[in-house]
Amino acid sequence: MITVWAPDGVGEVRHGDDLADHLLGALSECDLADGDVVCVTSKVVSKAEGRDVVGDRAEAIVRETRRLVARRGSLSIVVNRLGLTMAAAGVDASNVETGRVLLLPEDPDATARRLRADLLERTGAGVAVVVTDTAGRAWREGQTDIAVGAAGLRVLDDHAGRVDPYGNTLAVTAPAVADELAGAAELAAGKLARRPFVVVRGRGDLVLPPGEDGPGAAALLRPEGADLFGLGAREAVLAALRGSDDDRAAFGGPADAVELRDLLAGLTGAEVGLVDGAIEVVSEDGRTGWVVAVAAYAHGWLVDERAPVGVRLRPITT
Amino acid sequence: MITVWAPDGVGEVRHGDDLADHLLGALSECDLADGDVVCVTSKVVSKAEGRDVVGDRAEAIVRETRRLVARRGSLSIVVNRLGLTMAAAGVDASNVETGRVLLLPEDPDATARRLRADLLERTGAGVAVVVTDTAGRAWREGQTDIAVGAAGLRVLDDHAGRVDPYGNTLAVTAPAVADELAGAAELAAGKLARRPFVVVRGRGDLVLPPGEDGPGAAALLRPEGADLFGLGAREAVLAALRGSDDDRAAFGGPADAVELRDLLAGLTGAEVGLVDGAIEVVSEDGRTGWVVAVAAYAHGWLVDERAPVGVRLRPITT
Repeated sequence: MITVWAPDGVGEVRHGDDLADHLLGALSECDLADGDVVCVTSKVVSKAEGRDVVGDRAEAIVRETRRLVARRGSLSIVVNRLGLTMAAAGVDASNVETGRVLLLPEDPDATARRLRADLLERTGAGVAVVVTDTAGRAWREGQTDIAVGAAGLRVLDDHAGRVDPYGNTLAVTAPAVADELAGAAELAAGKLARRPFVVVRGRGDLVLPPGEDGPGAAALLRPEGADLFGLGAREAVLAALRGSDDDRAAFGGPADAVELRDLLAGLTGAEVGLVDGAIEVVSEDGRTGWVVAVAAYAHGWLVDERAPVGVRLRPITT
Repeated sequence: MITVWAPDGVGEVRHGDDLADHLLGALSECDLADGDVVCVTSKVVSKAEGRDVVGDRAEAIVRETRRLVARRGSLSIVVNRLGLTMAAAGVDASNVETGRVLLLPEDPDATARRLRADLLERTGAGVAVVVTDTAGRAWREGQTDIAVGAAGLRVLDDHAGRVDPYGNTLAVTAPAVADELAGAAELAAGKLARRPFVVVRGRGDLVLPPGEDGPGAAALLRPEGADLFGLGAREAVLAALRGSDDDRAAFGGPADAVELRDLLAGLTGAEVGLVDGAIEVVSEDGRTGWVVAVAAYAHGWLVDERAPVGVRLRPITT
């Protein structure tokens, strides 16, 4: 049994406020216990840390953006300063005074560690802390809350190597429990009531011993080169046509030579061979050469030098 | 307060079994109540419906696939028969007997409706039902459980037009509560214990009146043309180079003419104009013409006819 409790009666959180004060004030009827997970919205963390600034939303988005991922009309999805892929870089204009915008916390994992330490000191309870935010998803409508900061939590409940009751190895299953906790907290708190704190009880097995803060929510960010959706479909095409260095990481590391050779052969109908780790495309046709260059860029390979006939490609190794 | 309870003592579910029997047998200590949400894993739904078949996993994946989205090494992400974007099309080889594979239910929304009706008839409780499955995400490590079927549930807690306590309109917020419920159920049940049923109590406001089944989990599928990540970054480039009809929907509908004109001008440096709703690119350079054709394809435009000089593009309207 898991219980998810969103206490009422939390006052307005202001710059400089102590988050533990706010939480413990609202928790008067119920004590924290070892193994609880305390979730707190990034919104009140940002307010407490003075990230609530007067200003223009569009400007703030540019400042918080590390790389554009996809744009359609007024919607832009970017990788932000924290490495999170989010609409509007995670800059928020709801639940703040009109004319102000709220930036994400400077370092949500650090915030989670501080709050965890404060709560241990003041209550004696060894809890985990999750800082939550709301994010859209590829392929699915609506948003779910996810963990943007965490301390004292096994954020991935890694089952790799474990065996199911039938003796099959669960090779790749790793529930992102930090995100599921954030989602459960959103269910309990709702979006409109002022309930920024949620206590989840019943998964103490995910909570690390005091002094061990774990990898934080940063461990949930898939590294750029390992993600297959580092660019929107249209943006990927534009990036490959441009062939600029800026977006190269979004396509991942060099593709396997044999795979790329077969792919280029299928794409162009030209004779494509492997010579000393290079791929050689035998064709005098300019359009073929150009198709090869664009496809190669997307697969982490570059046109290296003119082969005697056609194009020679090498993997990008830097 | 939300409680999430995963009863122990559910026996092995077999083809032809009644799911309500299994659930109610395990619930002897606790009655269902109006407003509860009953979550059940797709795994046991599939077993009850005889979707547990002897066979080869790779073959089953091909049969369940509607369209390839991205591939990297042995990982393939596809849109499956149900419209879900999932690794391996959602075909599962864990928690089934070795040498068998488990296909997703034929129609998980229909399953949810039947189970909901059965539970109302047998217990008098007006509950919602969610059929859950485990799915990976773009950009984030690990998996979360999501809703692949639903009945009697507001799957999106749509806040559009509502106003926050500061008077700001919450324009685009629509928590995907069905997915958050599935994630909470996963937290309570875990992956290794045999706890396929979970009862969530405390969000009766999301449960529709008996007789009203709502849109089902299908409403959480973003329509193909509206998704920015219909293809992996590499796959998008290959699709645009091929210019085939198969992947056109994955890029979305025709881009705005002014936006595409500006984009092509920036990409090629050529003179690009708008004439009678067509885009004309003035250039004699073959490479420019080709860049334009590939970029246009990704933006839902086609090379229509040779302009007097250069290329003329029209939006795809069929």
